[in-house]
Amino acid sequence: MAPNWTHLVRFLAEEDGQIHLGQIDAKEWPDVGLALHDGKKVTANLVEGTVFDGVVTDKYLTIAQLLSPLRIDEVPIIRCLGLNYRDHAKEANMPIPNEPVLFIKPRTALNGPAPAKINIPKIAQDGSSDYEAELSVVLGKSGRDIPKEKALDYILGYTCSNDVSARIQQMKNSQWCFSKGLDGSCPIGPVLVSPTAIPDPHKLSIKAILNGEVVQDSNTGEMIFDLATTISFLSQGTTLERGTIIMTGTGPGIGAMRKPKLTLKNQDDMRVEVEKIGTLINTVYFE
Amino acid sequence: MAPNWTHLVRFLAEEDGQIHLGQIDAKEWPDVGLALHDGKKVTANLVEGTVFDGVVTDKYLTIAQLLSPLRIDEVPIIRCLGLNYRDHAKEANMPIPNEPVLFIKPRTALNGPAPAKINIPKIAQDGSSDYEAELSVVLGKSGRDIPKEKALDYILGYTCSNDVSARIQQMKNSQWCFSKGLDGSCPIGPVLVSPTAIPDPHKLSIKAILNGEVVQDSNTGEMIFDLATTISFLSQGTTLERGTIIMTGTGPGIGAMRKPKLTLKNQDDMRVEVEKIGTLINTVYFE
Repeated sequence: MAPNWTHLVRFLAEEDGQIHLGQIDAKEWPDVGLALHDGKKVTANLVEGTVFDGVVTDKYLTIAQLLSPLRIDEVPIIRCLGLNYRDHAKEANMPIPNEPVLFIKPRTALNGPAPAKINIPKIAQDGSSDYEAELSVVLGKSGRDIPKEKALDYILGYTCSNDVSARIQQMKNSQWCFSKGLDGSCPIGPVLVSPTAIPDPHKLSIKAILNGEVVQDSNTGEMIFDLATTISFLSQGTTLERGTIIMTGTGPGIGAMRKPKLTLKNQDDMRVEVEKIGTLINTVYFE
Repeated sequence: MAPNWTHLVRFLAEEDGQIHLGQIDAKEWPDVGLALHDGKKVTANLVEGTVFDGVVTDKYLTIAQLLSPLRIDEVPIIRCLGLNYRDHAKEANMPIPNEPVLFIKPRTALNGPAPAKINIPKIAQDGSSDYEAELSVVLGKSGRDIPKEKALDYILGYTCSNDVSARIQQMKNSQWCFSKGLDGSCPIGPVLVSPTAIPDPHKLSIKAILNGEVVQDSNTGEMIFDLATTISFLSQGTTLERGTIIMTGTGPGIGAMRKPKLTLKNQDDMRVEVEKIGTLINTVYFE
């Protein structure tokens, strides 16, 4: 069965203490992460099936707690683009890459929205832990050698994400997989929004907000490689498995580039806000 | 149940056409890949259970075909070290890194021994496809923040592997995940050898042999970061999942560094030979 949800969440229900998939009424709750954070009582329409084939029912339950819309066993891998925003490349004084730059986060980096925290492990408690607000796409089917004109058909949904990075480690090593692959360094959510609800994913305002201050403020229109190009490029000779998360890069304003520099501190309130999706809220927690 | 095999293979049996795990008698068959390639009739002692808990039985079956010792669903991820051999760093004229350099191959890169082929997809048929003979370790249990002195306890077994690389793509991009992550770019096997059978993994001769010519000839004693250091480093703030393959880097003699350069061509006979493990044989196949 093809999924028919448009705004999917995974949540713990108040009524039964169980985990469910649910559909949010986006007219009533355009930003469910924010609404719950503000103490609102939100009910979700139950979705039966998995995130890949879920169908909206006529039952309702109350959200006690939001979870990552995808479970770790549904995510084979997290593929991430480096330097994919024109305004960020300018800020970093780096040449515009002529092909997408891929690095990989392991699925063990997967994290969810509040109350899940951004855990900063000991090795990253060095005054260099940083945020990167990103639009992520989740693939709904597997594919290889995907032509550009069919690439968008592979998108199951869009969500907010944060490419949490340990900058000192990142600068020490030429490869980024270690510094950006720590446990919990990929919070996503809270809502997975279907392509039917976002006809143009390249016209979305995207922000990082740290302790109430907007520290990144860009637009997905700044992407150097659009989503179709990225998916098609990455699938060359490479099977992209269903459930793959693709993080599509970040705009300017990351902590390491600011003057003075900003880094994540214990108890910080960290938010990623993407237009038409909502706000991914996390508290930073030094382990 | 703790596994009690010492030389594990996964294979298709002649008798029933089914896939089994088996134990090879290493005294009779010190190099099962080579023996089968030479047309020998090899029987394996059946192993019941999974690669992680398999127990040797008293039943025997004949090997019709070798397979990767691990299935894709048993491998969450392939973690790889760059520049981890002193002699290779010298050849590449690169400074010795002061910390392990990690890049990641997706599990979709997993491949097996002959008759499985090294498939070279279109994008890598650019005269730059290359080999890297490597010792790989497979983790038998999950762990995080693993102290160096306990790190070797996490090793389930050792095997041969080839870090097949698309050099033009690798040089184009600062990050190596794309150029080294193509489907089939991680052949491993054929035997998974337990640590009980390899008391010192840092004293093994390791070779790449291309069309009968030894093109890489090093020793695992050339590793800059030994296995305990690598596992401990990679596990900092990071859960290493059971079944993770860690490719531990390559010695000198890769095709790109030779004069004249060497690259993989259609129908090449490609072998990786590691002392006490045997030979991983593959034919190169341009898709």
